[in-house]
Amino acid sequence: MRSPADAAPSYLYLPELGAPGATVALPPGEGHYLVRVCRARAGDRATATDGRGAVAVLRVTTIGKSVEAVVESLERAERSRRAWVWCGPPEGERADWLVEKLSELGVEVWQPLHCERGRWARGDGRGVRWRRLAVAAMRQARRRFVMEVRPPLELGEALEQVPPQASRWLASAEGTRAPAAAGGELAVAAVGPAGGFTRVEEGWFRERGFAPICLSDGRLRSETAALAWAAWWASQ
Amino acid sequence: MRSPADAAPSYLYLPELGAPGATVALPPGEGHYLVRVCRARAGDRATATDGRGAVAVLRVTTIGKSVEAVVESLERAERSRRAWVWCGPPEGERADWLVEKLSELGVEVWQPLHCERGRWARGDGRGVRWRRLAVAAMRQARRRFVMEVRPPLELGEALEQVPPQASRWLASAEGTRAPAAAGGELAVAAVGPAGGFTRVEEGWFRERGFAPICLSDGRLRSETAALAWAAWWASQ
Repeated sequence: MRSPADAAPSYLYLPELGAPGATVALPPGEGHYLVRVCRARAGDRATATDGRGAVAVLRVTTIGKSVEAVVESLERAERSRRAWVWCGPPEGERADWLVEKLSELGVEVWQPLHCERGRWARGDGRGVRWRRLAVAAMRQARRRFVMEVRPPLELGEALEQVPPQASRWLASAEGTRAPAAAGGELAVAAVGPAGGFTRVEEGWFRERGFAPICLSDGRLRSETAALAWAAWWASQ
Repeated sequence: MRSPADAAPSYLYLPELGAPGATVALPPGEGHYLVRVCRARAGDRATATDGRGAVAVLRVTTIGKSVEAVVESLERAERSRRAWVWCGPPEGERADWLVEKLSELGVEVWQPLHCERGRWARGDGRGVRWRRLAVAAMRQARRRFVMEVRPPLELGEALEQVPPQASRWLASAEGTRAPAAAGGELAVAAVGPAGGFTRVEEGWFRERGFAPICLSDGRLRSETAALAWAAWWASQ
């Protein structure tokens, strides 16, 4: 079923894509994937992204100890819409698949939040794992931007850093059902930890212009609410 | 922090709720949960659903070998909106958390579909596990309806059974972005297996009036598309 001139399913992640005409040596993981999984041969084409908006067509030139390819063409794009998700810790390991799903849906920034009722554990290698999941999901969805995984922030600090032009959303069972579209170029959503935000924290969000949005007629877990918001945003 | 007269976090699943005034013996699992986890005592109140629209306030009367309660009041409701999700098999065990999430979002029916490019495995106890997950998620979300888990159907058979009044949606990267609301009292969504529906299958859906809907600007995995559709529906 394989087309001989196109390692079609391949979608590589090369953070350092060269300009058209440049020869790039593939990182070992990507080279292995291309040759062993996609069964590429010299002369085949493959697609690659740098995760920062560029997508290139490569032609494989060398297969050996190192896999090399030449950049045939390259196209760069800007994000037209951006979404950031701020989230308190859900229960257990549920954040792992949340990171995967948010990345698939095209969220720009994953921002874990330390909250009164839930703090993210430190030094458990989560950041590294999340970055790997975000890259894998970007490839799966054939996106040109990799989701940025930020280190956890105190809620108060995060609030100091909301870009002024952002539309702001607070996941809340008491919010508005089916509000108008997210609007604007950047949307920021805040989702509480498993135990929810405190009333004081909710007050901070309201003072900063976060609009409460109700995403379901039932009570949602943190990770479900975060995903439901991202799906609502992505469907627009 | 516990209020002495109300085992507040309790939300029990009692498929056979009696009429007001009746005494019910709790199934062992629910009795254990109420007494050991919620620390209920005789005289305390608890909330229970039958998963078919009724929610009752119970008063605990006996704690011993068996836990008994009297139904103080009972309120029954109909579903005002209903959603069915038809889904070909995603990769690995991803259907498990999908079942949990669809249940949290209030989907009425989970219908696994056998498709040309993916068939559900037989006899692996999935149905039993899914029903357990659906009940747990209903309790978590404090809903009054439990999601119905149906056995897998051939796509052709499923198509014979679409209720005529249902609005119909086909998750497709080539569909319409942000269509009007799902509309109607019942909405049915079809999502392909990991390898996607074939062109022939897509044709069958179109003949039956399924409207292609694009849920993201990237390629979504089966379980992500199913969830994104349900979140879109739930947000309305």
